[in-house]
Amino acid sequence: MQNHILLINGLDRKGIIFLVAKTLFGQKCNIISQEEYVSPDGYFFMRTEFESEQTIDITSLLALLSKELGEDLNIRINPKRKKDIVVFATKEHHCLADLLTKYYFDELNANILAVVSNHQNLQDYCAKFSIPFHFIDHSNLDKASHENKIQKVLSLYQPEYLVLAKYMRILSTEFTAAFPNRIINIHHSFLPAFVGARPYQQAYERGVKIIGATSHFVNENLDEGPIITQSVREVNHTHSAAKMANLGKEVEKTVLSKALELVFADRVFIHNNKTIIL
Amino acid sequence: MQNHILLINGLDRKGIIFLVAKTLFGQKCNIISQEEYVSPDGYFFMRTEFESEQTIDITSLLALLSKELGEDLNIRINPKRKKDIVVFATKEHHCLADLLTKYYFDELNANILAVVSNHQNLQDYCAKFSIPFHFIDHSNLDKASHENKIQKVLSLYQPEYLVLAKYMRILSTEFTAAFPNRIINIHHSFLPAFVGARPYQQAYERGVKIIGATSHFVNENLDEGPIITQSVREVNHTHSAAKMANLGKEVEKTVLSKALELVFADRVFIHNNKTIIL
Amino acid sequence: MQNHILLINGLDRKGIIFLVAKTLFGQKCNIISQEEYVSPDGYFFMRTEFESEQTIDITSLLALLSKELGEDLNIRINPKRKKDIVVFATKEHHCLADLLTKYYFDELNANILAVVSNHQNLQDYCAKFSIPFHFIDHSNLDKASHENKIQKVLSLYQPEYLVLAKYMRILSTEFTAAFPNRIINIHHSFLPAFVGARPYQQAYERGVKIIGATSHFVNENLDEGPIITQSVREVNHTHSAAKMANLGKEVEKTVLSKALELVFADRVFIHNNKTIIL
Amino acid sequence: MQNHILLINGLDRKGIIFLVAKTLFGQKCNIISQEEYVSPDGYFFMRTEFESEQTIDITSLLALLSKELGEDLNIRINPKRKKDIVVFATKEHHCLADLLTKYYFDELNANILAVVSNHQNLQDYCAKFSIPFHFIDHSNLDKASHENKIQKVLSLYQPEYLVLAKYMRILSTEFTAAFPNRIINIHHSFLPAFVGARPYQQAYERGVKIIGATSHFVNENLDEGPIITQSVREVNHTHSAAKMANLGKEVEKTVLSKALELVFADRVFIHNNKTIIL
Repeated sequence: MQNHILLINGLDRKGIIFLVAKTLFGQKCNIISQEEYVSPDGYFFMRTEFESEQTIDITSLLALLSKELGEDLNIRINPKRKKDIVVFATKEHHCLADLLTKYYFDELNANILAVVSNHQNLQDYCAKFSIPFHFIDHSNLDKASHENKIQKVLSLYQPEYLVLAKYMRILSTEFTAAFPNRIINIHHSFLPAFVGARPYQQAYERGVKIIGATSHFVNENLDEGPIITQSVREVNHTHSAAKMANLGKEVEKTVLSKALELVFADRVFIHNNKTIIL
Repeated sequence: MQNHILLINGLDRKGIIFLVAKTLFGQKCNIISQEEYVSPDGYFFMRTEFESEQTIDITSLLALLSKELGEDLNIRINPKRKKDIVVFATKEHHCLADLLTKYYFDELNANILAVVSNHQNLQDYCAKFSIPFHFIDHSNLDKASHENKIQKVLSLYQPEYLVLAKYMRILSTEFTAAFPNRIINIHHSFLPAFVGARPYQQAYERGVKIIGATSHFVNENLDEGPIITQSVREVNHTHSAAKMANLGKEVEKTVLSKALELVFADRVFIHNNKTIIL
Repeated sequence: MQNHILLINGLDRKGIIFLVAKTLFGQKCNIISQEEYVSPDGYFFMRTEFESEQTIDITSLLALLSKELGEDLNIRINPKRKKDIVVFATKEHHCLADLLTKYYFDELNANILAVVSNHQNLQDYCAKFSIPFHFIDHSNLDKASHENKIQKVLSLYQPEYLVLAKYMRILSTEFTAAFPNRIINIHHSFLPAFVGARPYQQAYERGVKIIGATSHFVNENLDEGPIITQSVREVNHTHSAAKMANLGKEVEKTVLSKALELVFADRVFIHNNKTIIL
Repeated sequence: MQNHILLINGLDRKGIIFLVAKTLFGQKCNIISQEEYVSPDGYFFMRTEFESEQTIDITSLLALLSKELGEDLNIRINPKRKKDIVVFATKEHHCLADLLTKYYFDELNANILAVVSNHQNLQDYCAKFSIPFHFIDHSNLDKASHENKIQKVLSLYQPEYLVLAKYMRILSTEFTAAFPNRIINIHHSFLPAFVGARPYQQAYERGVKIIGATSHFVNENLDEGPIITQSVREVNHTHSAAKMANLGKEVEKTVLSKALELVFADRVFIHNNKTIIL
C-alpha cells in the first residue's frame, strides 16, 4: 500500500473540497491529511495525502478528478517517494557537506545522483561518499558552452530537481527555463536585502544587527525567484564581514535543508512569484 | 553617591585602558563596569561606569583625562540619570502607547516631556496620562514652516532626544542637522530591505517569509542612518499585507523599546554610520 | 451575512470531511477556510469557517451534521465575534496594560467586561480606560470565602473566558472546575521548567541561558494545564534574577496576547491535556 | 608573534584592571581585547587577549601578576591555539558528523584526536576521515571496568577536553572527577525541563510548544552541570515525539558547536555551578 500526494491548484470555485472528498471516497481512497488555501485573488491550492488498499490507476483517477472539478484546474498525483536530485557547488563546502551527510545517514528525502562543480576542491570530499563528481571547468568557456556541458551531464541523470548549494555562477535564462520551478538556490542574505555579490560585505558596511539566508526557486531574474524559506541570526559591531560570513554558513545550510524538506514533500506551490506552503 | 558614565572614543593608542584606570584610581573613583572595543580601522571606544564617595568635579576630571590620554580623544562624562525626551507620532498608537505605559509605570529610562503629532487622534490617549500633546497640523504648510512650528514647541522643552514613534513625515536635512545623533526612529521593515513607504505591502508582494523592524538614528538620508537594533518575526503565505502590518506592530514596539534602552543608558557609539554598542 | 465557525472533534471515522462538505454545500454555505488534524491515537479535529448568504438556523444545522456524522462527535457552531472576558490581576501591570491598551484601540478580539484584583494598585490605571475594577481583598479570608466573592462579581458579567494576567493566587479545584477550559493563565517560566513560585529566581540560580513564558489553560493541577503558546528570550550571566524578571515581562505579555488571539478565534482544541491549534 | 589569553578570577578588589594594564604595559604587551565581569557576590572575572613583539616568559609574567594582584587570585595564561579533544559517541551521528565535517574543513578550533564509542555503527563514517575510532563495548562489563578501558585509551591521547556528542552512558563520579570542567555534554532538552532519559517523549506528552537543547559541563550530578549554551525550536501538535527528536538533532548540533567555540576560545568561567562567558 503506497501513499500518494494529490496536488490541485487553479481558479477557486465552490465545492472543490467536497468533490475531491467524494471522488477519493468513491475510489476507496482514505484521506490521511489535507491542507488547502485560497489566495486573496481567488486561487485555490490543496495538498491531499491519501492511501488506498488497492493499487491506484493514477491516469484514470486524474481523469475522474478533472471531469468532476473542471478541465482548467492543475491536478497532479505523485507517489510519496524520494526525489532524484543533482547538487551544484563551487568552492564552499558547508551546504554540500550537510546534504551529503544527511544523504549518507538516510535523512534526506532525496537521492543525490551526482555533484556538479566548476571547481575541484570538493571532489575528495564527495569521493568519500561515493557520489559521482563532475568537474566542469568554466575557464575559457562562454556561458552557453559551459552550460551545454552541464546539460550533457544532467541528461545522464535526469534529475527532478537541481539544488544550487552555493553554486556561484549565474545561470542563463535558457538554462533556468529548461527547469521551471525545479532549481532551488540558497542565497547568502536575507533577500531582498543585499542582492547580488558579496552580501556579507554589504551587510557589514550597512551595520545591520541581523543577517540571514534565503532559499528560493531560481527563475530568469537573479535573486528574484519565489522565496521558500528564510532564517536569520543576530550580529553586532564585533562581527567583521568574514565573521558574518562564517556565522552565515550555519544559517545557510539550515535554511537550504528546510526548504528542500518542504519541496521534496510536495508542499510548495508557486503563485504570483510567491510560494504557498501547505 | 551618584554613578557616572565615562565615554571615550577616538583613534586608538597604546595604554588608554591603563591611563583611564590610573586616573580614576587616583581620583578615588571605583570602576563598576567597563566595556571597550577597537574597530578594525583602529578606533577605540570605551564606556566606563564608576562611582565615587566624594562629589566629582566633572570639568577637572575631564581635563585630567584629556591631558593624560590626548587632546584629540572625544571624552564625555554623564551623570547616570533619565534622559529628557519628546515623542513624535502620527496616527498609529502602538509605539507611543508602549512608551507612555512604560513611563507611567516608571519602567522607561526617560522623562517624556511632551508628544508632538501631525494628527489629533492620539490626543485623548495622551491626556489620560497627562502628557502635553502638541497637535501641529502640516496641512497647507510647506515643510520648513511646519518644522519651524515644531522647533518652537521643542524649544519649550529642550529635550535631549527626539523619538519618532511611527512619525510618518520625512524630516528635512536642516531639521535633522539640528539634532545630530539625537533623533531615533522606528522603521517598519528589516532595513535595508524595503526602504521607503509601504514596506509591508512591498514585503507581501515579494513573498518574504520573515518581516522585521529597525530602529536607527536619523540622519540626512532617509532610512540610512546608523542601525541600533533590529528584530524579526516569521510570516507565511496566509499573511496579507495588513496582517503583516499588524504582526509588525508587536515587533516595532519591541525594537524601539530595546533601542531606547541602549541609547538612554549611554551604550551606543556611532562610527562610520554604524553603531557600536557597549 | 455573518461568518460562522464550525468545530468538530471526536473519534476519527472515514468520510467526515466529505460529509461536512456535502452538508454545508447542501445548505448553501460556502467554506472559506478549513483546517483539520487527526491525532496518532485516532481522534479527529476540524475547524471550518463558512459564510452563508441566508440566515443560518444553527440548531437545525447542528442536528443535520450530527445525523450525518454520528451522535458521538462533539460539534459546535460559533458565530464569528468577540468573546466576553474578565481579566484577573494582582500587582504587576504589564500584561493587564497590554490587554487594556489593545482593547482601547480595538485590537483585542474580546470585550473586557471587568478587572478583578486582590490588590488596589492597578485601580487608577483601569479607571483611565473606564474598565470596572473590582478590588476583592483576600486578607483575612479563607480561599473559599475569597473565591465566593469573586464568583459573585463574575455572575454579574457572565464572561466566556477568565484571563489570569499575572494573578498570583492559586485557584481552588472547585473554582477551576466551574470554568472548564475557560481560564487562561500566563506563567512566568518556560514550563515545565521552574514550576511554582519565583521562577526567575530559580532560573537565575540554575544559570540558564534562555528564559521563557507559557500561556496555558488552568485545570485542577497548578501549572499543568494544556499549553497554548510559549516563547523565550536569551539571557546571560549578567542577568540578575530581577533583570530576568524585567526581560520576562516583555515575553509574558507577548505570549499571553498570542494565546488569547488563538483561543478567541476558536482555534484551540484540547486533547489528552495538550492543545491542538488549527 | 603569538597571542596569549590571560584569565583571572577570584575575589574582587580595587584596582585589578589598573594593575593588569600596568603590568602588561610594563612588559611591552599590547592588550587587543579585554572583557571583565564582577558577580553580585563579589567575584571578579577577566579575559584579556594580548600580543607581544618579544617572546613571553609565561612563568615570570604569572609570578609578576600574582605579586601585583594577590596570591589568592586564580591567574592563567594560555597561548592562543587549538585544543586537543576526544569525542565520545554512541549510535546517533548528527553531532559527531558535524564536528568531523568542521574538523575536516578546518573550521573547528580543536584537534580531534580520536572518537570513543560503545557501539560500532559510526566506525565507517569516522574511517572516511581517518579519525582513530575506539569501540569500547560496555556489554558484560560493570561501569568501573568499562570506564577503566576508556581511561586507558584516553591516556594515549592526553586530551584537554572530552566532548560527549550524544554519548548515552552515564559517567561515574570517579570518571567525571578526573576531568573537572573538561567534559562537555549536549543534552537533548531545554534543561532543567525534562532531565533524564527520553526527553522528547516527555516533551511530547507534556504538549510543549518549544523544544530545545542544552550544552553543559558534566559534573557529578547528571544534567546539573554548568550550562554553557542553549537554543530552542518551535513545535506544534503535529510533531510526534519522533519528529521532535528529528528537529531536535538540528538544534543539538548547533548548540554543541556553539558551546565548543566558546570553551575552546577560553571564554567560559565557572562560578557557583553557572558559567560566565566573556
